[in-house]
Amino acid sequence: MRGVTCDGQTIHLRRDLPEPEAAEDETVLRVVAVGICETDLQLARGYMNFRGVLGHEFVGLDPAGRRVTAEINAACHACPTCWQGMPNHCPNRTVLGILGRDGAMADLVRVPDRNIHPVPDAIDDHQAVFIEPLAAAFRVPEQLPIGPGLALTVVGDGKLGLLCAWVARLVGAKVTLVGKHPNKLALAGPDIETRTLDDIADLARTQDVAIDCTGSTSGLQTALGLLQPCGTLVLKTTVAGDHATSLAPIVIDEIQVVGSRCGPFPRAIAALAAGEVDVRPLIEAEFPLDQAEDAFGRAATKGAKKVLMRVGGERR
Amino acid sequence: MRGVTCDGQTIHLRRDLPEPEAAEDETVLRVVAVGICETDLQLARGYMNFRGVLGHEFVGLDPAGRRVTAEINAACHACPTCWQGMPNHCPNRTVLGILGRDGAMADLVRVPDRNIHPVPDAIDDHQAVFIEPLAAAFRVPEQLPIGPGLALTVVGDGKLGLLCAWVARLVGAKVTLVGKHPNKLALAGPDIETRTLDDIADLARTQDVAIDCTGSTSGLQTALGLLQPCGTLVLKTTVAGDHATSLAPIVIDEIQVVGSRCGPFPRAIAALAAGEVDVRPLIEAEFPLDQAEDAFGRAATKGAKKVLMRVGGERR
Repeated sequence: MRGVTCDGQTIHLRRDLPEPEAAEDETVLRVVAVGICETDLQLARGYMNFRGVLGHEFVGLDPAGRRVTAEINAACHACPTCWQGMPNHCPNRTVLGILGRDGAMADLVRVPDRNIHPVPDAIDDHQAVFIEPLAAAFRVPEQLPIGPGLALTVVGDGKLGLLCAWVARLVGAKVTLVGKHPNKLALAGPDIETRTLDDIADLARTQDVAIDCTGSTSGLQTALGLLQPCGTLVLKTTVAGDHATSLAPIVIDEIQVVGSRCGPFPRAIAALAAGEVDVRPLIEAEFPLDQAEDAFGRAATKGAKKVLMRVGGERR
Repeated sequence: MRGVTCDGQTIHLRRDLPEPEAAEDETVLRVVAVGICETDLQLARGYMNFRGVLGHEFVGLDPAGRRVTAEINAACHACPTCWQGMPNHCPNRTVLGILGRDGAMADLVRVPDRNIHPVPDAIDDHQAVFIEPLAAAFRVPEQLPIGPGLALTVVGDGKLGLLCAWVARLVGAKVTLVGKHPNKLALAGPDIETRTLDDIADLARTQDVAIDCTGSTSGLQTALGLLQPCGTLVLKTTVAGDHATSLAPIVIDEIQVVGSRCGPFPRAIAALAAGEVDVRPLIEAEFPLDQAEDAFGRAATKGAKKVLMRVGGERR
């Protein structure tokens, strides 16, 4: 079968990959469409030392022909961490297209049965590719009480930043989005205040919550500076290498910092199906899988929105 | 009057200081005893750029002759931060012997009336000097639910580390204290497991809560490494300068980091009066105020416990 693999330096479109064989409690899905995310670009360059098929944002068809997607963490469900209700943190886990498990940039992908979620007809293929990152954005209100009256700023106007801003607004917060790119800030919509990075002086020490979605070392300091005492900083993106930063403000202002990763697929699916979040403005382009190199090149372009690849099946 | 001042490089015992005059809603107290803490040593060397009389851990007598102590943050009680119930974070605040307000290493000290707390007879002068740092240790269970069954490790066997360990044990946690000094670890008592830093490999990724009381840049990494996924790291001490550290584990393991500073005086007073916490093993020595230089020298000795200075009044 076809598949996009990475060797730690770049990607390769291969046509000679063996078809995956499902273990017990697994199913092989036929991939319909798959997204390229920032993590894929980093994995391609060697992040996590991953070798194998990339891709963890996808929609596919199960053997009965039903449209489905799948959560990315494949846990053992037999260790103390799993027993404590944290399978996404299982120390024995593999992660789809990220850690020890081939991903969905291929004709076929093998996933654990319990990770599979049906995709309603109300969600088209392009929207469905956003279920995984939208679920990550919905992780934040799972971790923190975010509601009406809360002043929340998202720092970073990339895809994840916009998704986090929309979700925070959806659950009632007064949301400001801070970024570098006027064209991306313009996507936020009328209910979200937008600011460029050079225009945030008056927001200093005013926010209850700040979410760092920059993926850059400066994002942490920017976000910290916006928080009022006892505020909460959510770290949504990792940064390769060390932060060189003073953490004294965290102690002096008694800031709470919350790391945030994968989130609830059912909530993301419900939000897309009900039209609570419209992700379509985030789409840059769709390429066929056979043009994977072009697709990755486009995704790596400065300021690019979400690049999708069509793998197979009927367009929905 | 006499007073110990700092000029950013060292301390001076002066005998020619003017007596403080109480503003409205303030009282001048006669100081009985005062402690030297790590912050004082840092302030003496220039931290916070403080100029004035040092000292924020003390017991004294009010004009009626009652034994009292006082909280250190003097808030305006008229700004939005105060109105939101966070006077300890008031942006207009002064802080006793730390920021814009003379401290208690003097014959007399001026404090806001509302900051004053009576000291019961059951607490002797030496114990009373610990009310402020013990209150800081009691801040942690105010911020986090700490109770029976919780695995909690304190990293750092200094005075604050021991106080935090005792408080965590008092509220029911299963407590481990990690440090460098066998003689200090021995003070922890029979209900607390102690480990030296080179003997913690088996604690990796097992703890629900880790409290960094090291005041060193390596403490954060040590404490992080002990936490299980979704665990909580409490930062109790600041570090001068930048941390050069990867924060990626905070995101990947969804760690919560909580900055923690000043705490509830009434709880600390109740604990000392009831004998719930015995701070007397933490005392290194008492010097008269007239030997302030010697007292500071002893406090700065590697491995020193709490050094006190006797200022005046009858010994209790």
